[in-house]
Amino acid sequence: MATIVQPTPPTLPTRPSIAADYGDAFPNSRKVYLDGPQDIRVPVREIALSGGEPPLRVYDTSGPRGYDVRDGLPPLRAEWIRARGSVTEVPRTYRAPDGTTPAEIPETLRRTTLRGGGTVTQMHYARKGEITPEMEFVALREGMPATLVRDEIARGRAIIPANINHPELEPMIIGRTFKVKVNANIGNSAIRSSIDDEVEKLRWATLWGADTVMDLSTGRDIHETREWIIRNSAVPIGTVPLYQALEKVNGVPEELTWELYRDTLIEQAEQGVDYFTVHAGVLLRYVPMTANRLTGIVSRGGSIIAKWCLAHHTESFLYTHFREICEIMRAYDVSFSLGDGLRPGSIHDANDEAQFAELRTQGELNRIAWEYDVQTMNEGPGHVPMHLIKENMDKQLEWCQEAPFYTLGPLTTDIAPGYDHITSAIGAAQIGWYGTVMLCYVTPKEHLGLPNRDDVKAGVITYKIAAHAADLAKGHPRAREWDYALSKARFEFRWRDQFNLALDPVTALAYHDETLPADGAKVAHFCSMCGPKFCSMKITQDVREYAARLGTTEAQALDSGMRAKANEFRETGSELYRPTAPANPETVEHGR
Amino acid sequence: MATIVQPTPPTLPTRPSIAADYGDAFPNSRKVYLDGPQDIRVPVREIALSGGEPPLRVYDTSGPRGYDVRDGLPPLRAEWIRARGSVTEVPRTYRAPDGTTPAEIPETLRRTTLRGGGTVTQMHYARKGEITPEMEFVALREGMPATLVRDEIARGRAIIPANINHPELEPMIIGRTFKVKVNANIGNSAIRSSIDDEVEKLRWATLWGADTVMDLSTGRDIHETREWIIRNSAVPIGTVPLYQALEKVNGVPEELTWELYRDTLIEQAEQGVDYFTVHAGVLLRYVPMTANRLTGIVSRGGSIIAKWCLAHHTESFLYTHFREICEIMRAYDVSFSLGDGLRPGSIHDANDEAQFAELRTQGELNRIAWEYDVQTMNEGPGHVPMHLIKENMDKQLEWCQEAPFYTLGPLTTDIAPGYDHITSAIGAAQIGWYGTVMLCYVTPKEHLGLPNRDDVKAGVITYKIAAHAADLAKGHPRAREWDYALSKARFEFRWRDQFNLALDPVTALAYHDETLPADGAKVAHFCSMCGPKFCSMKITQDVREYAARLGTTEAQALDSGMRAKANEFRETGSELYRPTAPANPETVEHGR
Repeated sequence: MATIVQPTPPTLPTRPSIAADYGDAFPNSRKVYLDGPQDIRVPVREIALSGGEPPLRVYDTSGPRGYDVRDGLPPLRAEWIRARGSVTEVPRTYRAPDGTTPAEIPETLRRTTLRGGGTVTQMHYARKGEITPEMEFVALREGMPATLVRDEIARGRAIIPANINHPELEPMIIGRTFKVKVNANIGNSAIRSSIDDEVEKLRWATLWGADTVMDLSTGRDIHETREWIIRNSAVPIGTVPLYQALEKVNGVPEELTWELYRDTLIEQAEQGVDYFTVHAGVLLRYVPMTANRLTGIVSRGGSIIAKWCLAHHTESFLYTHFREICEIMRAYDVSFSLGDGLRPGSIHDANDEAQFAELRTQGELNRIAWEYDVQTMNEGPGHVPMHLIKENMDKQLEWCQEAPFYTLGPLTTDIAPGYDHITSAIGAAQIGWYGTVMLCYVTPKEHLGLPNRDDVKAGVITYKIAAHAADLAKGHPRAREWDYALSKARFEFRWRDQFNLALDPVTALAYHDETLPADGAKVAHFCSMCGPKFCSMKITQDVREYAARLGTTEAQALDSGMRAKANEFRETGSELYRPTAPANPETVEHGR
Repeated sequence: MATIVQPTPPTLPTRPSIAADYGDAFPNSRKVYLDGPQDIRVPVREIALSGGEPPLRVYDTSGPRGYDVRDGLPPLRAEWIRARGSVTEVPRTYRAPDGTTPAEIPETLRRTTLRGGGTVTQMHYARKGEITPEMEFVALREGMPATLVRDEIARGRAIIPANINHPELEPMIIGRTFKVKVNANIGNSAIRSSIDDEVEKLRWATLWGADTVMDLSTGRDIHETREWIIRNSAVPIGTVPLYQALEKVNGVPEELTWELYRDTLIEQAEQGVDYFTVHAGVLLRYVPMTANRLTGIVSRGGSIIAKWCLAHHTESFLYTHFREICEIMRAYDVSFSLGDGLRPGSIHDANDEAQFAELRTQGELNRIAWEYDVQTMNEGPGHVPMHLIKENMDKQLEWCQEAPFYTLGPLTTDIAPGYDHITSAIGAAQIGWYGTVMLCYVTPKEHLGLPNRDDVKAGVITYKIAAHAADLAKGHPRAREWDYALSKARFEFRWRDQFNLALDPVTALAYHDETLPADGAKVAHFCSMCGPKFCSMKITQDVREYAARLGTTEAQALDSGMRAKANEFRETGSELYRPTAPANPETVEHGR
């Protein structure tokens, strides 16, 4: 077996995160708070505009700023959780191999650990008709009534992943009535990366708009990495507990046991993980269905379970102990993300028997989870050509009773490694429009390597585009405001506003600067594409002024008055057309 | 007015293009030729694979290699054109302002100029039942019967843009039955770039897969730039003749005249432009419909014509002289690309009255063009949210009698300047699936600046993805082969094959190298995402071997034999699971 050189000790965060540069990322933006009932304060990003335009407020996932990662974030939800009662402080059950609590976690990051005496899930309260502060928070955040939030959660059509041990969380909701969300995956592996890297990626991903983050670490220091991540995360953290369980048996799937897995669930629930991917839908009889596939089983979790099932010739402990898993999860309010272990790994394998067999089982498991008031969503593919995407959504809605669907892409072609953020954004936007509620990002490094900072950002921005395109197509009431504000700024040559309103203002400005670097170009009534003599926007404004003077409602008036106006226009219009010199004419000459 | 410093003389190409690096761009690929009737030889790119796999042949737009740009490409079609007769050699009508032919065009690039005595269009021959060498060429290129090609052209459902003065062209077809095509825009402006840059962009764009190129130059040296481009282009070249006409009246739209425009059409037809964007659908009465838009008229051509119409209070000369335009175009076989001068420039303006009024007029103009056997396609938007895309396609098919639809994107949201290749690829893939036949690329610089080499490549690759995703969704018989070959390579850990099969092998390899740089990693049975202990693909292969041994057709046999096999699997499977060391274990340790 290959020897892996493992550096000891792991690189711990020693400096405030550089991702804290909110102002650099979003010029002319500031974080403001919306006040709601129950002392709720919801952060939004307010983008100041010029030209007398009102500021635009947009959804903000970046979390509280200015905190040292060695201290973690303030426990926003601590009082809400305690006030609901039915939780007790418990000692952490997890001990490091030497019997101590993990040494790498500093005192400043250690928190009391809670466990529910009974069921403490948001679904539980919703079904009792209660509106929790978490529900109020997301209602204000989404601009939707709190009663709607409650009812959607009660019906199982939406979830608020919010472990009682993750008080740092700013609650968010995942459901079809609300904004489409984006998940970013981070996590170290046996090959590379450190705790420092991963915490930084968390803060970086949420700065650019990730709504949840999955920590998919598989290498060493899994427990410590996760602790640092959760304590510094204002967004829900998801994990695949099976990965850590497998580390505990040195990577040999056959040696996994229910007891070991159960202890891992509790360990992670005590840390504050908000949702668990559980591949309980991979049944023994489904495994041979993958034999004729081009790319077999591509889900790590799915392949581990498949191997276990074949070795033991029984259903997996995830399936046979599913009710016990529910009992653990309801005591912390960990949500299910029922994994799609048999998702297709290539266009060839899309929508096959194995995939849909598991999806049907996911639906059965949803119903069991709901018996325990455990919130649940379903994971979906994967690699699917466009014409087969809708069938995934339709079947999920039917078989899984409208539980939230959470898909990876899907990638709409296999032929572009290096660009799979794009192959998958095409599919993600479509399935989001059809009703998928959260899109798991894919970075340009998919299939090739571990994403670095640039890849994480590219993945998040690309998926924010897909999610927003879906929101527009679904008619989300707030989605159009943003497009409207940006296009208005573009049309009115408010260049700075256009950059500041962009999903990625830094890149928009940098691209503009490549051709027209000087400040004068930022107020010029033209751009580098056409130059000063030849701007359609400029011409249009003239046309528009003319047409506005003419009046557009009366076709008759238009026709009769037109010839007379034509002469007038030729005078004034010709003058208008000649562009004024930009503030600094040098900007034109010095283009590269 | 801003003074533009214009360098003289323009920078002419003085060196063989660096884009000639076919081998660098496509490792393990070579250009081979398919032999057809009438001495046709169609280039394809053949990607050699390892592991006993047959090579994969893919569509190749890169053109003949190894020619000096100062000599231009060989005149592949010259004999075909002459053999059909009804063309005569004519002197070029265009003279530079000093009365000479343009001085900047070297002797080596000068060609005889042809004009048809009557109609010399591909549609003309198709309607007579003839199969031209151009039709044979595209039939072989697409893997479709030549009779089908002919019939689609005769019906107006497909076009082969192929000016008789562009003998360097390798014919290609644009139509719903065939592969979805990609257009790349290049062209200098008043602000920057040289002839050298533009020829290089042409060669670069076609190297990566552009099927046609539009030269949208608006600055000086328009004629010379175009000459260099056409002489070095194996793909059809499109232009917007209005841009050059406007230059001739110093950028004052009101001063445009039919005579000046007509002379420009002839000038460009004599050079060999294969299709003209003509905004003849912008009618006077449609202009006021844009007054209440958020972003008015964003098409350059549309805004020029709108301004002209208002100033003169008559329909534009494009519309009133449309039949004369047809008469010019049929004498050279220039195809129409009927412009969408009133396309929406923002989500807010999508699918409005102005846009659809023009589309209906495009349909009328198609019918007139067809009276003259002139090939025609229709340009489409623009900025359209996903739920409004299909209506564009449906109306175009109905109103424009299934003439090819050629869209810019559409962009599915306005909020991501800097990423508009992605916002638009989402829409382009969809509308391609619905039936659009050519996708005009959008680069990351859209709305911000002029694309450089990297942007051109990003735009082309992104649009190849969208076009291929559309081909897959439409069920194009050849599309799946490529995905199949790549996914098979991925599953079998043939890393080099996976890179070489990628749309952009260079980037795929570079990304892999970032994490696992050494050559040993290219044969390793794991990758950097999961490391050597934890690879789902590896596990799957074990599962698959097992299931294959078991047999999957007989559920009964499966069940009865399974328990016995389980023990066997535990033995052999455990062994199989342990990864073999990579060829060079250092590759694991030295990950960044």
